[in-house]
Amino acid sequence: MRIAIAGAGAMGSRFGLMLHKAGNEVILLDKWADHVNAINKSGLRVNYNGEDVVEKIPAFFPSEMEGYKGVIDTVILFTKAMQLDDMLQSIKPILSKDTKVLCLLNGLGHEDTVEKYVDKENILLGNTMWTAGLIGPGEVKLFGNGEVELQNVYPGGKEAALEVVKVLNEAGLNGIYSENVMYSIWRKACVNGTLNGTCTILDANIASFGATSVTDKIIRTIINEFAAVAAKEGINLDSEEIVNHVKSTFNPNGVGKHHPSMHQDLIKNNRLTEIDYINGAVCKKGAKYNIQTPYCQLLTELVHAKEEILIAQ
Amino acid sequence: MRIAIAGAGAMGSRFGLMLHKAGNEVILLDKWADHVNAINKSGLRVNYNGEDVVEKIPAFFPSEMEGYKGVIDTVILFTKAMQLDDMLQSIKPILSKDTKVLCLLNGLGHEDTVEKYVDKENILLGNTMWTAGLIGPGEVKLFGNGEVELQNVYPGGKEAALEVVKVLNEAGLNGIYSENVMYSIWRKACVNGTLNGTCTILDANIASFGATSVTDKIIRTIINEFAAVAAKEGINLDSEEIVNHVKSTFNPNGVGKHHPSMHQDLIKNNRLTEIDYINGAVCKKGAKYNIQTPYCQLLTELVHAKEEILIAQ
Repeated sequence: MRIAIAGAGAMGSRFGLMLHKAGNEVILLDKWADHVNAINKSGLRVNYNGEDVVEKIPAFFPSEMEGYKGVIDTVILFTKAMQLDDMLQSIKPILSKDTKVLCLLNGLGHEDTVEKYVDKENILLGNTMWTAGLIGPGEVKLFGNGEVELQNVYPGGKEAALEVVKVLNEAGLNGIYSENVMYSIWRKACVNGTLNGTCTILDANIASFGATSVTDKIIRTIINEFAAVAAKEGINLDSEEIVNHVKSTFNPNGVGKHHPSMHQDLIKNNRLTEIDYINGAVCKKGAKYNIQTPYCQLLTELVHAKEEILIAQ
Repeated sequence: MRIAIAGAGAMGSRFGLMLHKAGNEVILLDKWADHVNAINKSGLRVNYNGEDVVEKIPAFFPSEMEGYKGVIDTVILFTKAMQLDDMLQSIKPILSKDTKVLCLLNGLGHEDTVEKYVDKENILLGNTMWTAGLIGPGEVKLFGNGEVELQNVYPGGKEAALEVVKVLNEAGLNGIYSENVMYSIWRKACVNGTLNGTCTILDANIASFGATSVTDKIIRTIINEFAAVAAKEGINLDSEEIVNHVKSTFNPNGVGKHHPSMHQDLIKNNRLTEIDYINGAVCKKGAKYNIQTPYCQLLTELVHAKEEILIAQ
């Protein structure tokens, strides 16, 4: 399969590498010049479960895609949420009427953006539990195991979805065809919506936040806001199961010892966050359905305030 | 007038010093041993508008008040909010049926605590704009100007209130008899309720917080929650005037360059905050009147989470 990874950061590089190693024709697309140049000069350098690997995979700027018109079977979207629209705009030349587009971004509401550029029957939505870390330009660290669920947005797209699942499985990416991928996307958004903004604002790792006496109240209130909005979109979240799922991350000897990625983005690297696509997306949908989402709203505002305070300096 | 200052931190020391210099018999009560011992050994050392002053004012632990039974005309309460109940319990021996008790603590709902120990006709409530800074045990820095508004809680107490106003004025403390001191107390609580928790959680000074694009939304929402609850207690806050009053503190060349006291308590000194007596008090009253106060609630919870994260370490 000819696959373009649109957004070749840590996660995009993982998918690109594994699909490439499985014999697919992969190209990596990214706007980060140092990264693209490093990959083209020295290959994608990967610490792959402890082993150093270098793979020659062609990397491009999204604006250089003229030559790939009509030859890409599948685009996998892996940009930061706020770069999605811009990426789709740039890669319009390679989106033919047969090109499938699999969106694997974190957060909610990306389908609305993708639909501006892609016919609905070609859109696949997914959700992945794989992780990946960026070391520097051209260099990533991949460790552990994961899986990726996906589903066609429109009924007619099921065959294409199954084909992509097969290719992902052949590459060891553990693809799963989901009958209700929106549920998984919302469930993961609840994890990010309860941990990312709070740990960022509190400058805490997941275990520290998890250990406070008010955490149960905060995560329940946020998950209830997510659930009330999701219900309006036909997704009936099991709030109690999700509360327990969030709490399972608090173990200080496991995931709990880490800071969520939003904390790394803002507090460590002074970069803008994806809050508008997590809690902020719930507020936006809530306003549309006339549902109050005050916890999501204040959390989104506090994260934006912190962005302006830190990044303006 | 024989006056006991119950809680002789920075503000208590200011009132104690000025009332003492005006010829009143003042005693200072505090639980901080180093402070009490330093005052008794070397006097209260004050940088008073730039000039160094030392005044001999007797200082005691609240538990040592047996000898002062029936001789104190007025107690001025200036503890931290969470120490008020304990202080009143300790000084019960000096509260006779004629002793007036003026409560000048920041925050809301202190009258409920005072009423557990003091007859309603002896209770005066007040609100002060004076400032003061603690340098170390026995040593404070007093700068600038201020005033103090007060009012009797029950109609019969007006004469006593006017007497205390006169004594405050003779001491240069600019006492003002207020016909609606609860309005002033709520208005000041709105300032603290919009700036203290937010600047603490965001680790920002007032000007930095004031400059963000979400600040207007945050302070309006919080003030609206305060106003909805205050209305149930017969206090009709002018929200728009208070929003502008809060915004007047944002000037980076004035008050704006400072961090609110809550930030100093928690972020600088890792001490518990008074959030339960500001935003937390509004939540508690809101629950009683069946009024939603989600911004106050999440802010209170985030400050408590930060307390537990910082102070547990």
